[in-house]
Amino acid sequence: MRCQRCTETAAVEIRRHHTAFCNAHFIEFFDRQVQRAIDDEHMFTRDDRVLVAVSGGKDSLALWDVLRRLAYPVTGLYINLGIGEYSEESYRKTAAYAEAHGAALLVADIPGEYGMSVEEFARATRRVSCSACGLSKRYLFNRVAVEHGFTVVATGHNLDDEAAVLFGNLLHWQVEYLARQSPVLPSTHPRLARKVKPLYRIAEREAAAYAIISGIDYIVEECPNSIGAKSLLYKEALNLLEQATPGTKQGLYWGFLERGRPLVEAQDTAVLRDCIHCGQPTTSEVCAFCRMTERAAERMRVRRAGAAAAVAQTSAPAETGAPLAVVPPVGE
Amino acid sequence: MRCQRCTETAAVEIRRHHTAFCNAHFIEFFDRQVQRAIDDEHMFTRDDRVLVAVSGGKDSLALWDVLRRLAYPVTGLYINLGIGEYSEESYRKTAAYAEAHGAALLVADIPGEYGMSVEEFARATRRVSCSACGLSKRYLFNRVAVEHGFTVVATGHNLDDEAAVLFGNLLHWQVEYLARQSPVLPSTHPRLARKVKPLYRIAEREAAAYAIISGIDYIVEECPNSIGAKSLLYKEALNLLEQATPGTKQGLYWGFLERGRPLVEAQDTAVLRDCIHCGQPTTSEVCAFCRMTERAAERMRVRRAGAAAAVAQTSAPAETGAPLAVVPPVGE
Repeated sequence: MRCQRCTETAAVEIRRHHTAFCNAHFIEFFDRQVQRAIDDEHMFTRDDRVLVAVSGGKDSLALWDVLRRLAYPVTGLYINLGIGEYSEESYRKTAAYAEAHGAALLVADIPGEYGMSVEEFARATRRVSCSACGLSKRYLFNRVAVEHGFTVVATGHNLDDEAAVLFGNLLHWQVEYLARQSPVLPSTHPRLARKVKPLYRIAEREAAAYAIISGIDYIVEECPNSIGAKSLLYKEALNLLEQATPGTKQGLYWGFLERGRPLVEAQDTAVLRDCIHCGQPTTSEVCAFCRMTERAAERMRVRRAGAAAAVAQTSAPAETGAPLAVVPPVGE
Repeated sequence: MRCQRCTETAAVEIRRHHTAFCNAHFIEFFDRQVQRAIDDEHMFTRDDRVLVAVSGGKDSLALWDVLRRLAYPVTGLYINLGIGEYSEESYRKTAAYAEAHGAALLVADIPGEYGMSVEEFARATRRVSCSACGLSKRYLFNRVAVEHGFTVVATGHNLDDEAAVLFGNLLHWQVEYLARQSPVLPSTHPRLARKVKPLYRIAEREAAAYAIISGIDYIVEECPNSIGAKSLLYKEALNLLEQATPGTKQGLYWGFLERGRPLVEAQDTAVLRDCIHCGQPTTSEVCAFCRMTERAAERMRVRRAGAAAAVAQTSAPAETGAPLAVVPPVGE
């Protein structure tokens, strides 16, 4: 198969677009799709300060790379979730990219800041890991952005991710979640950064192809906590349909944005106020992150008090609501 | 595993309800689910004359059987679609049931009435077979019902069917189809019968179990034209999820009825008028069925004229808009 743009042998076939490209023209295609996402959805301009959430995986590293090449003023944010070897390896990949490209990177450290990993949050509050982790990341993305003067947070969610989330929300008819699913969530509070997903036009395998062609070394392993995650099952079901009918996922997600979302967006009636502990925007008195970390700290106090009674030892509990320490190890 | 109601060994497990039944208690469960569908959705009462569309498959024969046992005054309607051996076999199963149970059955004969099978309609009008067949069946269900004084048409669509159709409509965000997907479609025109689906709470395998336990001999083969049909692929994808999480299909469909449908039903803005050829309700001047049969007849005339020129032979074209002949072979 030949590249659609030149006589080279095609390296990447894009069945849903009935096309194929050589390496160089694939990168051009990728850039065009990302630029179109940014422009069509009014995600940001070159005057915005954009914080890119980077996990060390293909999607977020590809996003960071393409935004830098498209000359947007972006800074990476890596969050140490404390998930053992997985977190260590994902940090190494992120830091290596930053160093190799002289890219600005901030690092937020959950165990360093809160005395616990996201897995310990989950165990202490009887949540599933992915729930505690997602809550922590969403909280820190926004808090770091606002505290460091970024107006926009960009995440690496691709078309497959968005289609799978949409599918899950439809399977359960979670109308309030459907109402908030969009490539752009505007800022509706002075301390809420705009959230954007510039890869929503890019399939998962295209993000991987971009990273490989661009020589980006990313962490290939999935998070060990994601084994058996529903989102992977939703992706498997959608892949079955995509295989038979290329464009299924795009049809589902873009069709939703065009024809479904207008019917549900009025269902998003959330009113934001300030968390009385940390000041971050929330729909309740104390935000979900503070509630989780406080409950986890309380459980740890109880556990430690029990241990102390046995070995006559005391231990300082993790404190919440404190200013967040962010380390800029390279770049900035 | 034991029956939830008695000490017998369970014969049918229903994972989405966390339960299992012996044969006798499964039939009780089945009856209860159908009765609940009829009552909750106000499908019909014992004063309605109900026409049951019967294909000879497990779902429609089970529906016919359960409605007769629940003492509803029902009559079967079999439509000969002219799909070769498949149609012959499905008619034999239907007629055998009617004869064995003394059940009233009407028969409408598409090739006999229109001079062509649904496959020939499809070929002549360049439609896919399932589209020509579905259009023909919907048309004849209503026309036979109205011409014979039935107020309600009941079809054997089960939970799996409804979930798969919903999934397909969501994949393409066909909002106007979503607006019309319901276990009950009311009569909105003097010549439009109410359409009901009393098996919408019953999974496909439960309909099969009912037929087997009840000793109903049904046609097991799928229609030969359904090979590769999208609906089978949608069922496969949903089965993958149902296997991992029993109740997925029920959650999708019932959740839609409860929370999704209220958001879309205002999108059904169809205004019905009388087809100027056959008088059946339609949204355009000539109904889709008359347009299809007239176009097919025209093509056949052209083809026959060509053949006639060659062999000096003429042939009468199929006529449309004529009163429909319905044969009540047994029962009525």
